[in-house]
Amino acid sequence: MNNYTLVIHGGAGNIHPGMMDAALEKEYQLALQTALNKGYQVLEQKGTALDAVAAAIVALENNPLFNAGKGSVFTKKGLHEMDACIMNGADLQTGAVAGVRNIQNPILLAKEVMLHSGHVLLSGNGASEFAMSRGFAFMPDDYFYNKERYDQWVDIRDTDFYQLDHKDDNLKGTAPNPDYKFGTVGAVACDHQGHIAAGTSTGGMTNKRFGRIGDSPIVGAGTYANDATCAISCTGHGEYFLRAVVAHDIACLIEYKGLSLKAACEVVVLDKLKKMGGEGGLIAVNAAGDYEFCFNSAGMYRAVKSSKGEELVAYYGQASK
Amino acid sequence: MNNYTLVIHGGAGNIHPGMMDAALEKEYQLALQTALNKGYQVLEQKGTALDAVAAAIVALENNPLFNAGKGSVFTKKGLHEMDACIMNGADLQTGAVAGVRNIQNPILLAKEVMLHSGHVLLSGNGASEFAMSRGFAFMPDDYFYNKERYDQWVDIRDTDFYQLDHKDDNLKGTAPNPDYKFGTVGAVACDHQGHIAAGTSTGGMTNKRFGRIGDSPIVGAGTYANDATCAISCTGHGEYFLRAVVAHDIACLIEYKGLSLKAACEVVVLDKLKKMGGEGGLIAVNAAGDYEFCFNSAGMYRAVKSSKGEELVAYYGQASK
Repeated sequence: MNNYTLVIHGGAGNIHPGMMDAALEKEYQLALQTALNKGYQVLEQKGTALDAVAAAIVALENNPLFNAGKGSVFTKKGLHEMDACIMNGADLQTGAVAGVRNIQNPILLAKEVMLHSGHVLLSGNGASEFAMSRGFAFMPDDYFYNKERYDQWVDIRDTDFYQLDHKDDNLKGTAPNPDYKFGTVGAVACDHQGHIAAGTSTGGMTNKRFGRIGDSPIVGAGTYANDATCAISCTGHGEYFLRAVVAHDIACLIEYKGLSLKAACEVVVLDKLKKMGGEGGLIAVNAAGDYEFCFNSAGMYRAVKSSKGEELVAYYGQASK
Repeated sequence: MNNYTLVIHGGAGNIHPGMMDAALEKEYQLALQTALNKGYQVLEQKGTALDAVAAAIVALENNPLFNAGKGSVFTKKGLHEMDACIMNGADLQTGAVAGVRNIQNPILLAKEVMLHSGHVLLSGNGASEFAMSRGFAFMPDDYFYNKERYDQWVDIRDTDFYQLDHKDDNLKGTAPNPDYKFGTVGAVACDHQGHIAAGTSTGGMTNKRFGRIGDSPIVGAGTYANDATCAISCTGHGEYFLRAVVAHDIACLIEYKGLSLKAACEVVVLDKLKKMGGEGGLIAVNAAGDYEFCFNSAGMYRAVKSSKGEELVAYYGQASK
């Protein structure tokens, strides 16, 4: 039986010791541990990597601490527009949604797109019509209300600023303030059969407009899985991850250049992305059950659990395990 | 001074001798030659690859023969929802729009996104608001009316079928009928400074719904440019091109495995895509001004003109030049 491993993230950014009090740290600890257990349970019960990824992400989407699902930020118009993608490494099947509203778990809608739409990427109101046709429930706007997110938005809604999920942190155009975090969530898994999968879900940027889509729902950029190489889920300043086709680039460095999982992640995140000015990080796993965390920001909410007995929940630190 | 080259396509598919009468063949010849001249003129006058690509695609978008801009197909709701992407190989800057309506030249809106939005990909009504804020004119729905496209749509609008730009050719779910063509347009160019660029524009599939987005506006899938490797524009059954991250895969085979432009295109289009069941083709250029056509369908509307004196307009045939 293959080693099995689940890795999750809840966003990267300027996450450093001292930014959270003990109570908040405990909340994140519990949230990550809960999502980790939900996904790992699937793997223990000989479920698929795809189902483990979905289970872990559903738990993260249901927790208002993270900028995905219930905790999604407000757009310029005071709405919640969410993006998600899931990919199966065994057959390269994938499904994604962009700019969907009122869906409790966008990752499950992405999986539905993969399994039942004949398409890869559905967007906006059209994606909602698909959800309706497949019997998905719609949550009222109130479900996504969160005082902290609302206050973040009220501060800047009358400006052209948009903001990366953190009160002090405004961006305008391409001039980022270095003090922010990205609340996107994601999971990658390797199951007992040696198949891998990846998923990512996000509410995007506070005060975003113009139907902006980031890297999360884009196959090859924010999310990618191929049994032959790796499964990747990214979090960061999406525009850079799109331009660098980050997740697929790591897969190609492994497949065509023979790099290890660790070396490939480091080349892309610590060298290429950094030179472009792209901040963020990612989680990775391969079909042997090896895993990596890699980020060029101060920290990343992250956790791993494996059949080899590895178990870790962490936030700060060097990108090292 | 570097060699300069412009390559364009007007879609791949089951394009074979006998499908067009002499008059229609002449129309395509003229349309391709006109777009080729528009773009090549930019290169001759020492303009950039980016501007040459945009000029050629504008000409193709303005011609109702192709499924992009004016000739875009009808969606399930009887609308025209267009996708486009442009990318600059010198700095990996890129812009794209998905599901935009009433825009005469989506490729120019994609360029505007690249230059003035701070984002990479804008979608739906939000992208229209961006267009409005940048002073773009909106064309009435009538501008996009075309009897042939309308009849194609009327035939299937009450069904769950969608269709790839050709009357006899229905798809449902993932079961393609082999007898169709893809009317997407695209261009790649290398300029006298040795910089390259790529662009793609499409109306998608007749009777499409659910806000479906294909590979055309997705960086790395349908469109990609990097001076270090190649510029690529694809046309085909988009879902396969998305899953295979086609354009970026070719770039990686060149960069990491040392393949030639020709060999890299052939590995991806004639081997990998074909094994997945993905039909279509692409055009490619590199910073030396070398070019390739490559397709696994019966034909592809295509043309090339270069400072080395190469000039060709073709539709049928083997993928060879």
